[in-house]
Amino acid sequence: MSSIYTYEDKVHPSWIDHNHHLHDAQYFSIFSDAVVGFFASLGFSIDYRQNHDTTIFNLEAHITFLKEMVLDESFKVDVYVYDFDHKRVHFFLKMFNQEGVQTAAYEVIMMCINNKERRSAEFPEFVYENIEKYYKEQGDFEIPKQLGHQIGIRRKK
Amino acid sequence: MSSIYTYEDKVHPSWIDHNHHLHDAQYFSIFSDAVVGFFASLGFSIDYRQNHDTTIFNLEAHITFLKEMVLDESFKVDVYVYDFDHKRVHFFLKMFNQEGVQTAAYEVIMMCINNKERRSAEFPEFVYENIEKYYKEQGDFEIPKQLGHQIGIRRKK
Repeated sequence: MSSIYTYEDKVHPSWIDHNHHLHDAQYFSIFSDAVVGFFASLGFSIDYRQNHDTTIFNLEAHITFLKEMVLDESFKVDVYVYDFDHKRVHFFLKMFNQEGVQTAAYEVIMMCINNKERRSAEFPEFVYENIEKYYKEQGDFEIPKQLGHQIGIRRKK
Repeated sequence: MSSIYTYEDKVHPSWIDHNHHLHDAQYFSIFSDAVVGFFASLGFSIDYRQNHDTTIFNLEAHITFLKEMVLDESFKVDVYVYDFDHKRVHFFLKMFNQEGVQTAAYEVIMMCINNKERRSAEFPEFVYENIEKYYKEQGDFEIPKQLGHQIGIRRKK
């Protein structure tokens, strides 16, 4: 049994680059929107954040491009919480095309921020509890080989 | 003596998110544009690529967010070639604000692609030679701590 937050959309015309496929930077935008949707599903929406002087910043992100995505192709993004504490969440997201083939992997660490002081803060208690609940209910998390992968040119020995 | 390709711009209104700063995905878009500019400076422009059935794809990218960027703030991005072979380039890019403070670091590996077959290919000879020339002339490259950094929540022991 698992309960995964899934974000769905399709590849829009304005997202296509000169290679006639989804522009590289647009993958980040999609993953970023998926995380916004995930937090909103926990009650930590943009509206909530703006009314409570609390928000989240990205600290570091890593993407692996696995397969091209073309115009109108629909996709889904599954969101996994890999790790978390009272101030930070380490996410792992997987993008799949309509055939169920994984097209990208994304890893990001985010930090809760006091919006006025622009400094790190603890998540509101209900947000922390909801992250914890999600983490417990998401099911087994098989560590993907993209997670923590170091970028580099591999050479034959 | 060093000769670094530098990409310059400022933070446009449409790039600002609900946190009143440069949207996280927009950093990727800026770095992506900087790489397009870098390749164009070597003669490997979008026009050239479209006329010669050769292009480049991103394989993997990693960003570290170091400091917020706000509306109208001007910035520059310095492009370093960390490694390369006949099919791939491993870039490291640094973004600085107008005070010269580094605001982000970006690492990406790109592969030359035969546009018709959608398979890896060797760079056109002049492109490879220009990458090699750039690599030799960019000056000493001090390995930044963000390069190859593994994302994770660090805990006190």
